[in-house]
Parts: sequence; structure tokens; C-alpha cells
Amino acid sequence: MFELDPAFVRTSHEIGDLGLCAARLQDDARYPWIVLLPRRAGLRELEDLPPAERAALTEEIVAAGGAVRALGEASGRPVEKLNVGALGNVTPQLHIHVVGRRADDPAWPDPVWGRGGARPYGPSELEAALATARRALGLAPHP
Amino acid sequence: MFELDPAFVRTSHEIGDLGLCAARLQDDARYPWIVLLPRRAGLRELEDLPPAERAALTEEIVAAGGAVRALGEASGRPVEKLNVGALGNVTPQLHIHVVGRRADDPAWPDPVWGRGGARPYGPSELEAALATARRALGLAPHP
Repeated sequence: MFELDPAFVRTSHEIGDLGLCAARLQDDARYPWIVLLPRRAGLRELEDLPPAERAALTEEIVAAGGAVRALGEASGRPVEKLNVGALGNVTPQLHIHVVGRRADDPAWPDPVWGRGGARPYGPSELEAALATARRALGLAPHP
Repeated sequence: MFELDPAFVRTSHEIGDLGLCAARLQDDARYPWIVLLPRRAGLRELEDLPPAERAALTEEIVAAGGAVRALGEASGRPVEKLNVGALGNVTPQLHIHVVGRRADDPAWPDPVWGRGGARPYGPSELEAALATARRALGLAPHP
């Protein structure tokens, strides 16, 4: 059974479930940043998924990229480059980061991982960001 | 027409062509590290590839992971975790890094990108690594 590593509960907020992955918003308002976790038990590497699910994951990465762009637009800081990474050196449960980057962001041009200094979302800012991400991912509740 | 950005010529060595990607060995003997570049002109993001080629790319990433593991074994330092990253903040031509990591490597647990300090391969070491990577990727010349 799929269970989220507690590290993700501490550092991110639930957006919702895509076909394969749980999508979460990284709690760092400095970057539009979504984390995808395939909802399968015991995964560590891409190779642990069968090819059809790897292809599905890739499509969800592209969809998350669109949502990250939407988050950037909504905050008035459009994304200039997407960064996608599957690392897992600290938390080995398979997860994929999709991060929107700009030449004026605090870590540019370096990667955002392994640096700390996250700026957590405020409550209303968080609500707005989750709504934007859900709309972009087709997860918004129907009116 | 696909043309390799000169940055990759400077920092990596040709392994060979897979179905979609040019595969290159990063010239940093501290890590088993392959760079994949889809051989299509003008790509910057995963979303610039059509879905079928994104799926093909994902399979080549998994194959490169196997080759990175083979490189680690051949050097007596088996890979403990794969790191996969598509960044492109410095060189925007679409490329995917597949890096073998160990808890005793110089950057662990941080990412390897944006740190410098590469240790270039010596000539015989390079030849052996390229041969190992080609065998693992099914690119070795037939006897």
C-alpha cells in the first residue's frame, strides 16, 4: 500500500491525485514547485515502475510543468525554465520535483535542492496557490 | 537539424546514438554520469517533444541508469541511488543528466550540479568507461 513518507507531509501540501501520482505543492513560496509521487508502494527509482506507468509519469511531469507555469503567472513571476529532478538522496521514496525557475530567483542558475531557506506560504497565499494548481491540473471541483 | 551545443563537446565524450538521444559520458570521473540529448532541433523543455518521443526518452533514461550502474560496478564503486535531472539553466538545449550516487561521494546528499571541481578522465580510464557504457547500452561493435 502506498504511504507518503512523513518528510513530504512536513514540507508540502496536498494538491490532489492524478492518474498515477499524488501531486503536492512544495511549501516554499520562492518557487512555483510541485512534487509528484507515484502512488505505488516501495518505489525508489524510475526503473521500479513498469514502462506503461513510466510513460504515464512522464505525461504527469509535463502536466505538472503546465501547473508550475500557471503558478508563476498567477504570482506575476512567469517561469522562464522548468527544472525536473528525481533525486531521493535524502528521502528515497520515488518522487519527482517540477520547479519553475527564473534568472532572478535566489538560487539561479544552481539547482534549488539541498539549499534550505524555504519561505513557507502564508494561509491565503497557500489557498490561492492550491486553487491555481488544481485548476491547471484539471482537479478543481466542478461548480 | 540537431546540433550539439558546444558546452557539451567541452564537458563530455560521445558514447553513441540511441533511438532518440545522443548519449554522452560526462567528463567527471568522480561520478558515473551520462547525459542524454534528444536529437531534435530547438528543444528546451520535455513538453517540446511529442508524447511518443517523451515515452521513448523515458525508456532511454532508464537504459542510461543501467549503464551508469555498470560504470559504477566497473570502477568498484556500485551506485546506491540514481539521480535524474533536466535543468538547463546554464545550457538551455534539452538534456537529461543520469548520475550514479553513493553516500561517500563528494557532493552527497546534495545534487552534483552547479558545483564544479570535475575530475577529468585519464585516457585509458576514459576508453574503458566508454566501452563499459557502450556495452551496457547495446552500442558495442559486434565482434
